[in-house]
Amino acid sequence: MWRASVLTLFPDMFPGPLGISLAGKALETGIWSLDAIDIRSHTTDRHRTVDDTPAGGGPGMVMKADILARALDAIPPDPRPRLLMSPRGVPLRQSRVAKLAAGTGCVILCGRFEGVDERLIEARGLEEVSLGDFVLSGGEVAALSLLDACVRLLPGVMGKEASGVEESFSDGLLEYPQFTRPAVFEDVGIPEVLTSGDHAKVAKWRRAEAERLTKERRPDLWAAYQARKSPEKGPKT
Amino acid sequence: MWRASVLTLFPDMFPGPLGISLAGKALETGIWSLDAIDIRSHTTDRHRTVDDTPAGGGPGMVMKADILARALDAIPPDPRPRLLMSPRGVPLRQSRVAKLAAGTGCVILCGRFEGVDERLIEARGLEEVSLGDFVLSGGEVAALSLLDACVRLLPGVMGKEASGVEESFSDGLLEYPQFTRPAVFEDVGIPEVLTSGDHAKVAKWRRAEAERLTKERRPDLWAAYQARKSPEKGPKT
Repeated sequence: MWRASVLTLFPDMFPGPLGISLAGKALETGIWSLDAIDIRSHTTDRHRTVDDTPAGGGPGMVMKADILARALDAIPPDPRPRLLMSPRGVPLRQSRVAKLAAGTGCVILCGRFEGVDERLIEARGLEEVSLGDFVLSGGEVAALSLLDACVRLLPGVMGKEASGVEESFSDGLLEYPQFTRPAVFEDVGIPEVLTSGDHAKVAKWRRAEAERLTKERRPDLWAAYQARKSPEKGPKT
Repeated sequence: MWRASVLTLFPDMFPGPLGISLAGKALETGIWSLDAIDIRSHTTDRHRTVDDTPAGGGPGMVMKADILARALDAIPPDPRPRLLMSPRGVPLRQSRVAKLAAGTGCVILCGRFEGVDERLIEARGLEEVSLGDFVLSGGEVAALSLLDACVRLLPGVMGKEASGVEESFSDGLLEYPQFTRPAVFEDVGIPEVLTSGDHAKVAKWRRAEAERLTKERRPDLWAAYQARKSPEKGPKT
């Protein structure tokens, strides 16, 4: 079983959307487990204090190292990576998701946007992970996205195993355009090649479209794709 | 009131985590509204079909243009941007979030990862938005992140208005390290400058740390920051 432990000030946010649909069914059938740990239950004072004002001044509050350490250390030691959702982290990529999904699970600390005491991050070797260059009210919705991305890759979660293969980013390109019935929608038909029955032509068209879209929309991905395909490096294996 | 309308196959996922904490309070007090529209309620057949197999073959299912058009067109016309959460979209940035938050709201179509009929995207001029280079089981958790990011910027949502100012990405740098009590955590103190009471020194230290972290972790952001600060272009206003 793939095990997720989430440390949060808002345990009621979990499993939330992950209790429904694909991830929800996988949770019920025991493909993965989700333990939402209330950080506040590890406080020691009457007011159940989890944060304090930033040293040096400034707006907002900072999550306390001592309390977070207690919450983290209460999890029995295991080899799962310990992540901190934070806009300062390494932007999440599908390659990291795949690696996480191939492991035994993860421990996720949900930061608040004002931040976590730096000493805790260093003392516990937390891996800071960012969803992207935007700011959330807390790490919780980011954790939900990360977990959703991981869980769908677990064996037995996706109805058709094949669905995971031909998709965005697995080969470094954006996905080609999709079409389905009706054959004509508001006077626009489906590209003829897709209804030709010629599988080689379909594959060629899709590859060309994926390349066109990636080139147009994501010069960064396109450059990386080109670099991997360069003859100096030989074909990707 | 800032209005969000979300078209989804899983309306029960909303408001989910956004019904709690900051966003939840703002929802209760009417700072924003959230309408989760069940796409399936706009189907016309007995089986309530929303998807069909991809033209040209391949795994997975594609969401039907005709049904999505019915669901979208049932929303009375208004100037809100119409977004499609999709890994093929433009990666979300804080600048886009700020612009959305400054508007009247948004309409979000939650795609499934197999995709949406391309003709629908073009016919309704949907703006494709991606959280990042990873694949989710559907657009729902991505929509939750986007909405959370927008809602926290709405006037009256954050306790201290100032909290929105000094944070990641607003000046193109990652946030500086934060510290709070206890003064010593596992034998490690708080950097002296932060407890010196010298506000100018604190500000200088924080700026230097933010620059150091950005340079180390995000060469891409650092390059953009340097370009904006270059003397040819003059100071940013």
